[in-house]
Amino acid sequence: MSQEGLLLVVSGPSGAGKGTVCKSLLQKCSEIKYSTSVTTRKPRKGEEHGVNYFFTSVEEFQDMIKNNQLLEWAKVYDNYYGTPTEFVIETLKSGQDVILEIDVEGAKQIFKNFPNGVFIFLLPPSMEELASRIYKRGTDSKEVIEKRLAAAQGEIDQLINYNYVVLNDEVEKATEKIQSIIIAEKCKVNRNKVLKEEYWK
Amino acid sequence: MSQEGLLLVVSGPSGAGKGTVCKSLLQKCSEIKYSTSVTTRKPRKGEEHGVNYFFTSVEEFQDMIKNNQLLEWAKVYDNYYGTPTEFVIETLKSGQDVILEIDVEGAKQIFKNFPNGVFIFLLPPSMEELASRIYKRGTDSKEVIEKRLAAAQGEIDQLINYNYVVLNDEVEKATEKIQSIIIAEKCKVNRNKVLKEEYWK
Repeated sequence: MSQEGLLLVVSGPSGAGKGTVCKSLLQKCSEIKYSTSVTTRKPRKGEEHGVNYFFTSVEEFQDMIKNNQLLEWAKVYDNYYGTPTEFVIETLKSGQDVILEIDVEGAKQIFKNFPNGVFIFLLPPSMEELASRIYKRGTDSKEVIEKRLAAAQGEIDQLINYNYVVLNDEVEKATEKIQSIIIAEKCKVNRNKVLKEEYWK
Repeated sequence: MSQEGLLLVVSGPSGAGKGTVCKSLLQKCSEIKYSTSVTTRKPRKGEEHGVNYFFTSVEEFQDMIKNNQLLEWAKVYDNYYGTPTEFVIETLKSGQDVILEIDVEGAKQIFKNFPNGVFIFLLPPSMEELASRIYKRGTDSKEVIEKRLAAAQGEIDQLINYNYVVLNDEVEKATEKIQSIIIAEKCKVNRNKVLKEEYWK
């Protein structure tokens, strides 16, 4: 198959559960490749370098920007986050699917360069639940939490630019929906130009 | 929920397995409503009036055309086939999903009036398999079979107008793909305009 892989972009406000849902998805679909982001923020408890993020300094991050090594980057709540270009491009070319778990600002930049990407907005069930999740995480300062909550409403207004919206009321259900989205996307006529030639010589 | 139901159109050449796949889908998803077509062709063995088709005379069929009671109709291999309008419109309005199992000519007419319909093209695995299925069915005259096969290639060229293509190499797999397509379509942002208001007051 010479078909390119799918670029799956899972985004949404902080506290929507992007990390948990992506983890659950990757456990069920081991063939999907996870694009590890680079960040200047401090590791949260349990986070590993090279697994959850590539943790880096502000100087190193700025060098990556200068050298065009980032597909997208954004400064969010005083920290930089970015997606290394090479891994994504090479993996897609090889026909494998790549998942990006990124914030709404990052997704905006991906829209422009990947019109064939599959953009999924993860929606927390309510503003109350969103606040509760961020507080429970207990990893952010009160100031950061307030910034996140204030930003969430504006981020949700970006929903209109996405292909799909998945309500994350239960991780299992949200994961299954994304699995269905992947299967459906692979059935799209415009992704199957080779099908006709292969089966109907 | 004030959301309209999905209009699912399953089409493809004769012998693609539309009937078998739709039957399997309806068994798994009993909430989907099947739009029973009207036809002037003779019932095949086991087919029941009001279940598989409404079998009717040419005169009655022509009256339905005159009275605008058909959403689409076509003359295929000397027989008329059509979709009664009222059932489809009322069911969609009530928020339930409707499935139309129709030929490629019929689907063409539906494209125009239902831009939000979900158009699925069922593709048989090969021309040889298509021929073998039509022969095995044993219900058509040699002349009709030859007409069907000659038309198939032209029908497959219509694939480009559909949203999805599902290869029907195994009924079970094809059914699961259509189930995923339904779930994905219900997650589309443009079908969820009410979601934001409901969850984010």
